[in-house]
Amino acid sequence: MVIKYKLIKESHDSMARLGEITTPHGTFETPVFMAVGTQATVKTLTKEELEAIGSQIILGNAYHLWVAPGHEIVKEAGGLHKFMNWDRAILTDSGGFQVFSLANPKDISEEGVTFKNQKNGDVLFLSPEKSIEIQNALGSDIMMSFDECPPYPSTYDYLKKSVDRTIRWARRGLDAHQNRVTQGLFGIVQGGEHYDLRKHCAEALVAMDFDGYSIGGLSVGEPKTIQNQVLEFTTPLLPKDKPRYLMGVGSPGAILDAVERGIDMFDCVLPTRIARHGTAMTTHGRLIIKNKAFERDFTALDDHCDCYCCKNYTKAYLHHLFKSQEMLVYRLLSIHNVNFLLRLTENIRQAIKEDRFTEFKEKVYREYGLNDSNKDF
Amino acid sequence: MVIKYKLIKESHDSMARLGEITTPHGTFETPVFMAVGTQATVKTLTKEELEAIGSQIILGNAYHLWVAPGHEIVKEAGGLHKFMNWDRAILTDSGGFQVFSLANPKDISEEGVTFKNQKNGDVLFLSPEKSIEIQNALGSDIMMSFDECPPYPSTYDYLKKSVDRTIRWARRGLDAHQNRVTQGLFGIVQGGEHYDLRKHCAEALVAMDFDGYSIGGLSVGEPKTIQNQVLEFTTPLLPKDKPRYLMGVGSPGAILDAVERGIDMFDCVLPTRIARHGTAMTTHGRLIIKNKAFERDFTALDDHCDCYCCKNYTKAYLHHLFKSQEMLVYRLLSIHNVNFLLRLTENIRQAIKEDRFTEFKEKVYREYGLNDSNKDF
Repeated sequence: MVIKYKLIKESHDSMARLGEITTPHGTFETPVFMAVGTQATVKTLTKEELEAIGSQIILGNAYHLWVAPGHEIVKEAGGLHKFMNWDRAILTDSGGFQVFSLANPKDISEEGVTFKNQKNGDVLFLSPEKSIEIQNALGSDIMMSFDECPPYPSTYDYLKKSVDRTIRWARRGLDAHQNRVTQGLFGIVQGGEHYDLRKHCAEALVAMDFDGYSIGGLSVGEPKTIQNQVLEFTTPLLPKDKPRYLMGVGSPGAILDAVERGIDMFDCVLPTRIARHGTAMTTHGRLIIKNKAFERDFTALDDHCDCYCCKNYTKAYLHHLFKSQEMLVYRLLSIHNVNFLLRLTENIRQAIKEDRFTEFKEKVYREYGLNDSNKDF
Repeated sequence: MVIKYKLIKESHDSMARLGEITTPHGTFETPVFMAVGTQATVKTLTKEELEAIGSQIILGNAYHLWVAPGHEIVKEAGGLHKFMNWDRAILTDSGGFQVFSLANPKDISEEGVTFKNQKNGDVLFLSPEKSIEIQNALGSDIMMSFDECPPYPSTYDYLKKSVDRTIRWARRGLDAHQNRVTQGLFGIVQGGEHYDLRKHCAEALVAMDFDGYSIGGLSVGEPKTIQNQVLEFTTPLLPKDKPRYLMGVGSPGAILDAVERGIDMFDCVLPTRIARHGTAMTTHGRLIIKNKAFERDFTALDDHCDCYCCKNYTKAYLHHLFKSQEMLVYRLLSIHNVNFLLRLTENIRQAIKEDRFTEFKEKVYREYGLNDSNKDF
């Protein structure tokens, strides 16, 4: 296996687990949060800023990099790490999520998916083989299988057919994979909210012996209770000695709930996206920096935070920058928010180490206001 | 004097001079370039990035800070240095330049200028006293007198009346100045392209004994030959033991021409503004990063540059970021461009030190392509 997972400790009262993942670009502990660098850049941030807050692995999007600058240019540059100046680990998605949000159901065939480039209207075709070709060219440490991500809700019959296709596509991707020494590949477990479909999918993928397993088809609009239920019955279907990745999840509440159910890896655009809209995640919940209340507030964003933003700037200054549409504020809030999730996962790891995860989870829920009807779930 | 100027060396064949300015926030050599931080931020950059490229003094705009967040909020924050997290020197303009670009001639009276806030339509009034009150609240190291900056061209009669008012306003500003121990104040020499008006203005201001002298009313659309001519006859009218500041000038060619005519200080939005439009200043002239030619160019922006951008990123990557409208590129190009002008002025100082300024100027003109019809003059 290119990707090695070491289970370090399990909680006594939940499925929460502490582990360690080794990739060709570094080793890090899990649960881990991965900031998203869609277009070969974690929006507004440099490598040094990501390193300073302890980012060990980031995510790149195969679809976006295929469209621009093109995977061949990234390959010519020496791969995504070199192109974007990042020498720690990179995980790439397969493009499936973007493609299925652009494609019509009728354009999905056994061979692959036909869809339109959102920017210029070009007709494109993505298949398991093409997705792996793109990801091989990008040279990410961890690649994803090309899977179908059906919307929520979908009928049982549709999900059943879709899962079988996702399994066949996973096999085709595995066969197409060219860089087995330097790049790992994860299978993606689909199956909607149905235990039997998730089980069927997981067993078929586990038999193919991937480097790790993702849980897909969640965070697509289903209620929180369903997400938690699916995780509860799906993670036990996965091998203990491989990493488990919940795709597209990154709110503090959802991370805590998923760690409790045995998830190791997370990614989400949330921290950088809400930063650009002027929202900060703080110990005491979300904070909207443009609120008039902060006009003369000369204290830091979060008194429990030691990030670059909180150490050097006041809410009044950030408020002014945001109202003045100054780019610096998007960066400062991005640093803060990504740091917030990296510290959250760091504290989660420490809590698991000391076997007090449940207690820790309840404390964060309380402080962040997650017991209230907080949008951050 | 709050601001001390030490003349270190004069060129044998031009008016170029090497000096040293001491402010309450640090000492630096001149000629010096000041990056512009209009709204309490040098667009896209942090203090650390400015320090890393050797920025010793930056500029803030009294008008913009008066409008947002308001000079009183900045004062409450502990002054502009503290508000924006910058502990080296700051120079503020008087607001005059912005006000005169917004006001109608009929709204200019002896008392001051009435004009509309460009953002919300509020009617505002700025006078010499108000400008100094704002700048005192901001706490800049070097303040500017509130002057009238007439458009080019203006009639001799208008300029004559205007110069007399500028002189009276300079006196009023000096009288209104409250922080004489911590903030210096410059007078601004106006007078259009007329020697007698410039002389009249300079003599009147020198008699008031300001900390330094700015040359205003240039870079407002007049031909290069006129700008150079005005500098040639104006700098000799100013005392040798005080700094001389040419407002709003920052292209490589104009800096070289003005240094040759005895100017010590420069500011301009040019490097950060063109960076946001994807243009880099390089040893070999301007470079437009979106050009298709750079799509697969895996070399640095400028092979003679050791800035953070050039050490870590390729043209192909910058091209991709720019085409993808990723904010990081505006920052990287801003770092590069401000660094370019700081290195240019550093090399100018070294050349004056070794008394080979004229030779150096010709070399830069040749390499940058300034002898051709290059927009950068």
